Amino acid sequence: MWMSTFSRLALPALQRSSSATACQALRACRRPGQAASPLPSCPASMQLRGQQTLGSASLPLARHSVRNVRALDEKRMMEVEWEDGGHSLYPFTWLRDNCQCPLCTLGSAQARSLLMSDLDIHTGVDVVEVTNDNKVSVAWPDQHTSVFDAEWLKKRCFSVAARRALKEELFLNEQYYWDSKLRVPTADYQEVLRDDKAALDWLLALRRVGVVHLKGAPAEQGVVARLAERIGYLRLTFYGHTWQVQDKRMANNVAYTSGKLSPHTDYPALHFAPGVQLLHCISDAEEGGESEMVDGFHMAELLQREDPEAFGTLTSAHVDFTDMGIDYCEFMLQAKKCIIEVDADGRVVRINYNNATRDSVLDLPVHQVQPFYRALRAFVDIINRGENMVTYKMIPGDVLTFDNWRLLHGRRSYRSRPDGSRHLEGAYLDWDEVMSRLRILRSSVHGNI
Amino acid sequence: MWMSTFSRLALPALQRSSSATACQALRACRRPGQAASPLPSCPASMQLRGQQTLGSASLPLARHSVRNVRALDEKRMMEVEWEDGGHSLYPFTWLRDNCQCPLCTLGSAQARSLLMSDLDIHTGVDVVEVTNDNKVSVAWPDQHTSVFDAEWLKKRCFSVAARRALKEELFLNEQYYWDSKLRVPTADYQEVLRDDKAALDWLLALRRVGVVHLKGAPAEQGVVARLAERIGYLRLTFYGHTWQVQDKRMANNVAYTSGKLSPHTDYPALHFAPGVQLLHCISDAEEGGESEMVDGFHMAELLQREDPEAFGTLTSAHVDFTDMGIDYCEFMLQAKKCIIEVDADGRVVRINYNNATRDSVLDLPVHQVQPFYRALRAFVDIINRGENMVTYKMIPGDVLTFDNWRLLHGRRSYRSRPDGSRHLEGAYLDWDEVMSRLRILRSSVHGNI
Repeated sequence: MWMSTFSRLALPALQRSSSATACQALRACRRPGQAASPLPSCPASMQLRGQQTLGSASLPLARHSVRNVRALDEKRMMEVEWEDGGHSLYPFTWLRDNCQCPLCTLGSAQARSLLMSDLDIHTGVDVVEVTNDNKVSVAWPDQHTSVFDAEWLKKRCFSVAARRALKEELFLNEQYYWDSKLRVPTADYQEVLRDDKAALDWLLALRRVGVVHLKGAPAEQGVVARLAERIGYLRLTFYGHTWQVQDKRMANNVAYTSGKLSPHTDYPALHFAPGVQLLHCISDAEEGGESEMVDGFHMAELLQREDPEAFGTLTSAHVDFTDMGIDYCEFMLQAKKCIIEVDADGRVVRINYNNATRDSVLDLPVHQVQPFYRALRAFVDIINRGENMVTYKMIPGDVLTFDNWRLLHGRRSYRSRPDGSRHLEGAYLDWDEVMSRLRILRSSVHGNI
Repeated sequence: MWMSTFSRLALPALQRSSSATACQALRACRRPGQAASPLPSCPASMQLRGQQTLGSASLPLARHSVRNVRALDEKRMMEVEWEDGGHSLYPFTWLRDNCQCPLCTLGSAQARSLLMSDLDIHTGVDVVEVTNDNKVSVAWPDQHTSVFDAEWLKKRCFSVAARRALKEELFLNEQYYWDSKLRVPTADYQEVLRDDKAALDWLLALRRVGVVHLKGAPAEQGVVARLAERIGYLRLTFYGHTWQVQDKRMANNVAYTSGKLSPHTDYPALHFAPGVQLLHCISDAEEGGESEMVDGFHMAELLQREDPEAFGTLTSAHVDFTDMGIDYCEFMLQAKKCIIEVDADGRVVRINYNNATRDSVLDLPVHQVQPFYRALRAFVDIINRGENMVTYKMIPGDVLTFDNWRLLHGRRSYRSRPDGSRHLEGAYLDWDEVMSRLRILRSSVHGNI
């Protein structure tokens, strides 16, 4: 199932930034019976220009020329008229604040040197004009002059459409929701390590779909660390730099048993749960141990539709999670989380749910306890529906990479082989680091930085 | 200035958990002219009992005996009558969900084994009774029996007062706000490394006051890493495991110059900025370089009082921060943040503000741009008032440890000595790890775990 907004926003963004392989990966996600029409023809690669700030590091190709500028002194804004007939408004204060000259901007850090206390937030302008090389020059009453590139200004247009497009380009928030019919995007482990385009496709699909299966890794420890290094660095937690999922005596986590794990997100007992998880199969079970996963954002959407009251409860009740024990070192963690976390616009941004570490401490008025259980059960029932869950068995060399803020993952109980226990190695990263690498790869694959 | 609620909530919590030294550290924070009366006599140490979950790892001393229990079948709750005459209600579903038997709880991980899909959220009870050893036994219709410790139940009472007390004990959210008259709490570096009580006092003051000055460290690299290890582990970022604050050629951060840094929080370009910062002075400047700091939560409170409209703007406008360059590896970071971040209850929980990395991309409707600048300027003007800012000069061996979610810190411009540049080494940790160590130390200092 494609989200309603996917073709409107996500595909153009993907089109701008992805390669043929990424498109193939996403095609693989469609339901077998679904028409191919919503998918774009895979785009030709595009040129991006190096710029001073991240926001401008992936400017669209088209050059924008300034036809005219004028100061609207009463509004204290500058109006730019573009060659294509469009207009943009820029407040004087914003222009002065973002002067790109070496006094106001530290070029080597691409950061603002101008102090807020030195900014005149009531400034007027003396002269605004278009320069011979189609830049916009602003002379300020204090004798300072700022010169702005036309493309730089166009990118920062304050219109709704321009801001929405830039936000999507920077954050890639539009996602493809799925159910049991998902064909998990796959990529080759060695190729992802070796080739920037393959790495970009991997991270794009990870962002859009939430899960990518890497195949062909060696069946030995070190693979997840190597992948983390490919991105930037892994996130250390109390379970270590990487962690070994095996049946352990005196297990300090339910994952370190051979029992069933119902679908969960990892580490809700941390206030900022790891964003991305890597799980590498080194040796598999003789019987059982199949992996299960569901799209938590899609499940939250279903809950909201089917049972808005339950959705309201799970997006507002702050639930305690706890985790204590000894591993990398001793730990006693405690966090309060909404099981379904929404942002200020009501968009679901995180699922926080692990029934094993959900605390017996429940910080709710007593009359809200039963409604909370009813709501959680409704959510879990949707998660457990066969039509929503993808099930598969990892084999040695497989690496499952997935969005831990979005997916719930689990496994069936298992019995190890007589000659060696089932063994997965795992590691975490955060989305900031992954998105950082994605942006760098996007620039590099498309021929610039 | 003491917060209005400090004596009501924070001091009792401190009293429960701190030692004489912590009390001394906090005494040092009071204004010279302030009466000593709000401060408690420093408490005797207390015995805590080992328990199955974190929530119960620091139970108050007093034993609670059960006088009677009964099932309220219509309400589907169990009522406990305590020996002191009080009553508590516990929903049947919650009791069944939190059965502590080895089938329902994995003891070694102190985690729930019982799956949500196996929980009967409409269960009744067959029999509830008080056992000979003053526990509460519940026999369920499916033949399962749960036994609950009286103290465990008391701790989890759903009353407003009990929940508030437990929340404060677990999270220590009550804080002491300050201004320029703050006498920064100090502790001895070596003692903090050596002695658990000194370490606990350090972390308690760090949590309550937001800043602690450690004295007497060696003037060489490695100190911040050693302190991070004392807590758990440091947080790696794109600036490295630890980072060297010096005047650098082609600086990739404004901090790596000799210029003035206006008060800021570090790393708003990360979605989850580091919670705690350690800054160790290895060599100081010949002239200038004085450190400045303000209590951001206090400043936000002042803004809310003086200019509620500006407060409303800074708690609702999502502002872009950006950071790109090469250090530990290449990075292109982008995040959207409210400069003053509040939780669902309107409580200020984080300040996100660094004028250097505030992006030229500003994702606001054009008519909201000027009000945004007005609001930010109002906040910055409050921050820069002499009456709010603490200024001091670090000397080699000093380590400034502070809450990076709360404090804004800066430095004056400086000139290095001819024989060597000013040099600070810094590192980050997160609050989850710091609070984890604090809870462990609190248990260990008070004689149990």
